[in-house]
Amino acid sequence: MKIIVVGASGTIGTAVVAALAANHEVVRAGRRGPVRVDMADAASLDALFASVSDVDAVICCAGSGRLAPLTTDSDEDYTHGLHSKLLGQVHLVRRAVRHLRDGGSVTLTSGTFTRPTPGSAFGALVNTGLEAFVRAAATELPRGLRVNAVSPGWVRETLEGMGLDGADGTPAAEVARAFVHAVESPAVRGQVLRPGSASR
Amino acid sequence: MKIIVVGASGTIGTAVVAALAANHEVVRAGRRGPVRVDMADAASLDALFASVSDVDAVICCAGSGRLAPLTTDSDEDYTHGLHSKLLGQVHLVRRAVRHLRDGGSVTLTSGTFTRPTPGSAFGALVNTGLEAFVRAAATELPRGLRVNAVSPGWVRETLEGMGLDGADGTPAAEVARAFVHAVESPAVRGQVLRPGSASR
Repeated sequence: MKIIVVGASGTIGTAVVAALAANHEVVRAGRRGPVRVDMADAASLDALFASVSDVDAVICCAGSGRLAPLTTDSDEDYTHGLHSKLLGQVHLVRRAVRHLRDGGSVTLTSGTFTRPTPGSAFGALVNTGLEAFVRAAATELPRGLRVNAVSPGWVRETLEGMGLDGADGTPAAEVARAFVHAVESPAVRGQVLRPGSASR
Repeated sequence: MKIIVVGASGTIGTAVVAALAANHEVVRAGRRGPVRVDMADAASLDALFASVSDVDAVICCAGSGRLAPLTTDSDEDYTHGLHSKLLGQVHLVRRAVRHLRDGGSVTLTSGTFTRPTPGSAFGALVNTGLEAFVRAAATELPRGLRVNAVSPGWVRETLEGMGLDGADGTPAAEVARAFVHAVESPAVRGQVLRPGSASR
């Protein structure tokens, strides 16, 4: 398959590209590099599909989050992730509907707060909203298209990069296997895959 | 209590005002009328709290939805409800945190699609995202403040207004009782109330 990976240079994206490379043609896209896309800019999503054709699957690993307390001064700071992670991924699905080959798939990234976390309310809105979108959108996709989401909790390599104990996190390679499973399994549609959740 | 009802002239808002009026001081706010507010305009929310002081509770019944298929041409049409129902209600909670009296409450409107409905994916994102926001935001509110949501399915009077059978809907008065319960019950915090769901 020909697969676009958005956010290919991130911690999860790098692992996803590594997991796909043996069996698929991978187009690495991101805010840097040869194939540029900015999830917060819908026009750049149009440009992506205009420049890369005959695509079977799109994976978005570009959704980073940030904690923000309810008392954050500016609405813009409070709603971090609105344009890129939330709307960007919705816009990506809408464009994929027009451009993917029959039977193709889109796999988004949501996320999981494994315990009550002050400052997580807007992030919870984004993650849970995206998951509801995926479940509902899957029922109205034409041409055998599929949409799914992967909801990683903490990623081991991210925790270690922050100087924390990586043992509480899911290895990026395990998260990547969830993306590969969503892409390669025709029966997986409208699902939210939660790598690592069974082991915690 | 002194209670602002946003969307006071709508089908649900009218019933909420009627249910509150005997026991509370109600300020009717909306896009028309003496106290103006536009949920899609954060500055108008600031103006609302600047003009009405000593408020104990805010109820928002202003969130209308609309079905839009994934193939809708414009992103703006597809994301109907983004600025008013989704972000407007988030912005309302943030302002209420600063302006409500100690122990006050905010009650939002989400919504329920009782069966898979083509064109409901963005609406599902809005409703489910708001509910996740309410649950998470409730845990970080200061000064004994509370936030809840009421999730009405179809309202009987709305169905009848569309020329459909009202029997499948919940009477607006029953939906209104859920809003009153959220406002008057100190133990109700971070909850999503679903009037009528037990009877269907």
